[in-house]
Amino acid sequence: MTIGIVGAGQLGRMLALAACPLRQQCLFLDRSAATPGGQLAESLVGEFTDPKLLDALLRRSEVVTFDWENVSVAALRTAAARRRTRIAPPLRALGVAQDRLAEKRCFERLGIPTTRHAAVNSRAALLRAVAAIGLPGVLKTRRMGYDGKGQFTLRGPADIDAAWQALGGVPLLYEERIDFDFEVSAIGTRNVSGQSVCYPLSLNVHHDGILRLTRAPGPGGALAARARRHLLRLLADFNYVGVLAVEFFVKNGRLIANEMAPRVHNSGHWTIEGAETSQFENHIRAILDLPLGSAAARGHSGMINLVGSMPPAARLLEIPGLHLHDYGKEPRPGRKVGHCTIVAGTSSARDRLVRRILRLCYPQLPALP
Amino acid sequence: MTIGIVGAGQLGRMLALAACPLRQQCLFLDRSAATPGGQLAESLVGEFTDPKLLDALLRRSEVVTFDWENVSVAALRTAAARRRTRIAPPLRALGVAQDRLAEKRCFERLGIPTTRHAAVNSRAALLRAVAAIGLPGVLKTRRMGYDGKGQFTLRGPADIDAAWQALGGVPLLYEERIDFDFEVSAIGTRNVSGQSVCYPLSLNVHHDGILRLTRAPGPGGALAARARRHLLRLLADFNYVGVLAVEFFVKNGRLIANEMAPRVHNSGHWTIEGAETSQFENHIRAILDLPLGSAAARGHSGMINLVGSMPPAARLLEIPGLHLHDYGKEPRPGRKVGHCTIVAGTSSARDRLVRRILRLCYPQLPALP
Repeated sequence: MTIGIVGAGQLGRMLALAACPLRQQCLFLDRSAATPGGQLAESLVGEFTDPKLLDALLRRSEVVTFDWENVSVAALRTAAARRRTRIAPPLRALGVAQDRLAEKRCFERLGIPTTRHAAVNSRAALLRAVAAIGLPGVLKTRRMGYDGKGQFTLRGPADIDAAWQALGGVPLLYEERIDFDFEVSAIGTRNVSGQSVCYPLSLNVHHDGILRLTRAPGPGGALAARARRHLLRLLADFNYVGVLAVEFFVKNGRLIANEMAPRVHNSGHWTIEGAETSQFENHIRAILDLPLGSAAARGHSGMINLVGSMPPAARLLEIPGLHLHDYGKEPRPGRKVGHCTIVAGTSSARDRLVRRILRLCYPQLPALP
Repeated sequence: MTIGIVGAGQLGRMLALAACPLRQQCLFLDRSAATPGGQLAESLVGEFTDPKLLDALLRRSEVVTFDWENVSVAALRTAAARRRTRIAPPLRALGVAQDRLAEKRCFERLGIPTTRHAAVNSRAALLRAVAAIGLPGVLKTRRMGYDGKGQFTLRGPADIDAAWQALGGVPLLYEERIDFDFEVSAIGTRNVSGQSVCYPLSLNVHHDGILRLTRAPGPGGALAARARRHLLRLLADFNYVGVLAVEFFVKNGRLIANEMAPRVHNSGHWTIEGAETSQFENHIRAILDLPLGSAAARGHSGMINLVGSMPPAARLLEIPGLHLHDYGKEPRPGRKVGHCTIVAGTSSARDRLVRRILRLCYPQLPALP
């Protein structure tokens, strides 16, 4: 069987690695052949919206999925109308996740608490939004944002002009800035038959808009149960197939949905070594309608993103229990080039190792929590 | 970096899967492009002894390894003389492992107990060997044996003629047949710098000469300590680099070395899910002279070989905690087409799952221990 994957980044690469033992070939579509995924499987090379390439991808695949969410729903829908190939996750979920306003409305419709927000299409609308929601706040493009790109934080009235100049001209969203206690993500999988599994919460630390550290299992108890209910409601509402990730701010014990990603997620990389079944394997099982694997944690995991350039592999691998994932990318400031994961028997042993890895990978950063 | 791998079977495939996250490309040499490994990486296609292909493999690789032991030491040595490319494991170990007589002598030289045996090059020598060693015994080709091929069990004097007719004409070895209590394998890794790690013992069950079931950790205590000493002695003696597996019969608490394999080994497949670091990752780390990962077990593992044809994936994957490894091969009687592994918290929970998998995969076999 062939699985088509739109996007051949590190997520596509890790999907292909998980698909192989299940006798699945992967076929990528990406703008370049020199991608992390393209080192493992054939790539169709061209624009993501190219109708001929999309048609070829659907024709040659039993099911098509994607490794990032900024692919064209319209182009995929047009291509899918000609072929019977299934696309998973569903395009409706992809469409909602691509538009911050639709995403907020979806959260609200399903009773999932989210940030106060307002659509902003003009400078006047921005002034009204700031007056209604207050400061500080964040102005974001409704579309094409990731890793903190397309965002402007307004700390006081003096920032309004700069924010408008930086982002104005495309549909925007203004939302309250949550001075959160911490951030978690809830990751789950649902297969074609409707079986769902949810991973323990991931506890995330960002810096400069980029995820740096995930620890799991994160908080349990009532908070985790609520996050799980929110996640399952989304999975059911979309008749979802595949992995879905939802990021929440946590403030005074309240969960506030920030955004969702209809794909395997960076904050779930710890599941490769740290869960009974990785998010990548469960995504593949889900879209093939195979029984899902257990999402239970094995021990206490810490996942550190490697950003910009790779530290020497030998320095990393001498840390006991460390597993390295080098995405095979060229170094570039702010680029995710790999990650490493450790799994320990206790959370304190895990945190000792995490601090050691952070000192090696982020010597310039202040000590992370 | 490119790692050349002679042989692109399932072992090569699993090596390539482990090499990818360490930013290593693999390049195979095999007689066919339609191999388990060839689905993942480029293959040079032709005879294993083809000097041009071997030269190309060495020229394009930083280090060359092999996924089965019946490759030509002479051809590799000749090719290596022209190029500076390292070959690991060492060709001396490969040469010894290819010749059952050299292997027995190596065990004896290092004080590792092995079966009583005699070289057999004529019918008269076979008669002398049977007289000296007794019956029952096993006549084996000195070279090119695997999965019980090239072996003939002599239960009484009447079998001597049939055995000679079946195998005579090539160099043979006659050895006592051990009515063993159980079989274990000791698997270890040594890197270029001399760091070594040993996995817990694997407890193996064969049927019709083919490994069916491995459970790990096998016996510990003094028996495991002795096996570990034997393994470390071999690793040091060969100045070994990579994974080495030694199979032992166990009889009344005694270890009797049966054979060794200078490569990743079927009885170590459980390490993918069941050890902190898999044998495949540690082989790659070893030959690249990276620090080795912990070989400690995580829980109690059971690995069942899938032989002949694959049971339906959905039937297997509905078993809790089961991980499936389909090698992408066409079915054929007696062919290893895949394996599955489960890891449980206790040995009794593991054994319950193992029995369930065995009933599904081997309904025709008597209940295995």
